[in-house]
Amino acid sequence: MNIAIIGLGLIGGSLAKAIKLHTGHKVYAADKNSDVLSAAVDCGAVDAIISDTKQLGIMDVVIVCLYPGDTVDYVKNNAGNFKSGGIVIDTCGIKSDVCCALNDVAAKNGFCFIGAHPMAGSEKSGFSASKADLFDGASFIITPADGSSPAVNLISDLALQIGFGRVVTAAPEYHDKMIALTSQLPHVLACSYVLDADAEHHRGFSGGSFRDVSRVAEINDRLWSELFIENSEPLIEKIDNLINNLSLFKEYISRGDSEKLRCLLASARAKKESIDK
Amino acid sequence: MNIAIIGLGLIGGSLAKAIKLHTGHKVYAADKNSDVLSAAVDCGAVDAIISDTKQLGIMDVVIVCLYPGDTVDYVKNNAGNFKSGGIVIDTCGIKSDVCCALNDVAAKNGFCFIGAHPMAGSEKSGFSASKADLFDGASFIITPADGSSPAVNLISDLALQIGFGRVVTAAPEYHDKMIALTSQLPHVLACSYVLDADAEHHRGFSGGSFRDVSRVAEINDRLWSELFIENSEPLIEKIDNLINNLSLFKEYISRGDSEKLRCLLASARAKKESIDK
Repeated sequence: MNIAIIGLGLIGGSLAKAIKLHTGHKVYAADKNSDVLSAAVDCGAVDAIISDTKQLGIMDVVIVCLYPGDTVDYVKNNAGNFKSGGIVIDTCGIKSDVCCALNDVAAKNGFCFIGAHPMAGSEKSGFSASKADLFDGASFIITPADGSSPAVNLISDLALQIGFGRVVTAAPEYHDKMIALTSQLPHVLACSYVLDADAEHHRGFSGGSFRDVSRVAEINDRLWSELFIENSEPLIEKIDNLINNLSLFKEYISRGDSEKLRCLLASARAKKESIDK
Repeated sequence: MNIAIIGLGLIGGSLAKAIKLHTGHKVYAADKNSDVLSAAVDCGAVDAIISDTKQLGIMDVVIVCLYPGDTVDYVKNNAGNFKSGGIVIDTCGIKSDVCCALNDVAAKNGFCFIGAHPMAGSEKSGFSASKADLFDGASFIITPADGSSPAVNLISDLALQIGFGRVVTAAPEYHDKMIALTSQLPHVLACSYVLDADAEHHRGFSGGSFRDVSRVAEINDRLWSELFIENSEPLIEKIDNLINNLSLFKEYISRGDSEKLRCLLASARAKKESIDK
């Protein structure tokens, strides 16, 4: 197949490398930064550069690896350039807004759009941080308008072939609710945590739990501000839940109520154990 | 030297194993569980069992690895049994209350007490989770009443010899304030986080940030409820700071104020970068 990657950041670069490593498909790429494109060709992550959007007409699969707003704009602007019957997927961390905007565009223009979210990342960004094994064992979530089309099967097979551990199919709204908890809240949390005035004096007083809770505070502010605001309703619900639970701990600790505190801690441990099963 | 370890849990067991691995000292141990003592002797972590508290009189160093309240009781109850001029240290995660209670007892009974906190741990507990390399590269914090005594030098040298990366000397109150942020708050956070009703449905929707923020929710409720309540004032201040920061994120997200949200995220990233330097 001819596969186009639009945007060679952490995700696009890693997908290009994984496709070249695991398959015989030809990888084309576009990026606003010509140095990145050259580097990608030089290291063998990309076979050829897309110099004209008309080339999109020969692509069997186009993987758009841009920020959410840019993704919607790109697909809309190129709606007439995609191959008839070809497949276009995105890689955004939110799905309701993107799928709502693009499912119709695809239907009207004769290509298949499949919302997708490769569930791996890094606190580092850009092509220089990309790697062929970024997705090894990770979930590949898809939120297709039609869950059983040949296009869905083709994309699912491709995901498993390039290293993903499983393909999960979900409604866009369910995806966004779960992602608010599993991915967005840990990022809000890490940032809120490191903003404590004492965090910079941690050396000598910190170990593994400090490292783990603060790791993703090394955040891409443009990307995540967009993701947070476009998913504000589920995310705010999750922030509220967390504040309520923190307040309960605070109440028991300040009252010195060791019995209730132990119960709450034990229920958290039981929850953690059921999570890990 | 003759070194006694009182309590062969995760910390006591790991200290015994590290001392045997790195030094020629003789390790004695006491534990309420005779099976644990037998296992410790069988695997070479301990040379001999303390069957009578009178044996404490031959110990050059006694390392008490019990919960905070039990530690204070143990040292008070055995104040007359320790070797004259000998050294007694604890390993509790809080220091003000413990040191306040025991510095005087030591002075009156002719032994040296040094508050200590080995800054490593695990979400697993008990002797079965202990290991000789648990402390490799970690901080060994001490909060001595007298910062430059021969006893402090001896304990510092021993810590570095058995694998700790550095010895940090602090006032007990400063220790407790920093630990509230670097260790206690991440535990409160992890427990508050997993208590969200959707956490158990995470499979297929979670990656590294979910794993990291929830790891220490596998908590020892008896130990941590004691640590939290005995350090309630600094810990509540840190919980309040976190709730305030979370609320700021919530405000900007719900208003859709991407400019202020990006600024806040960028300041968190800058803080994280300065932390890692």
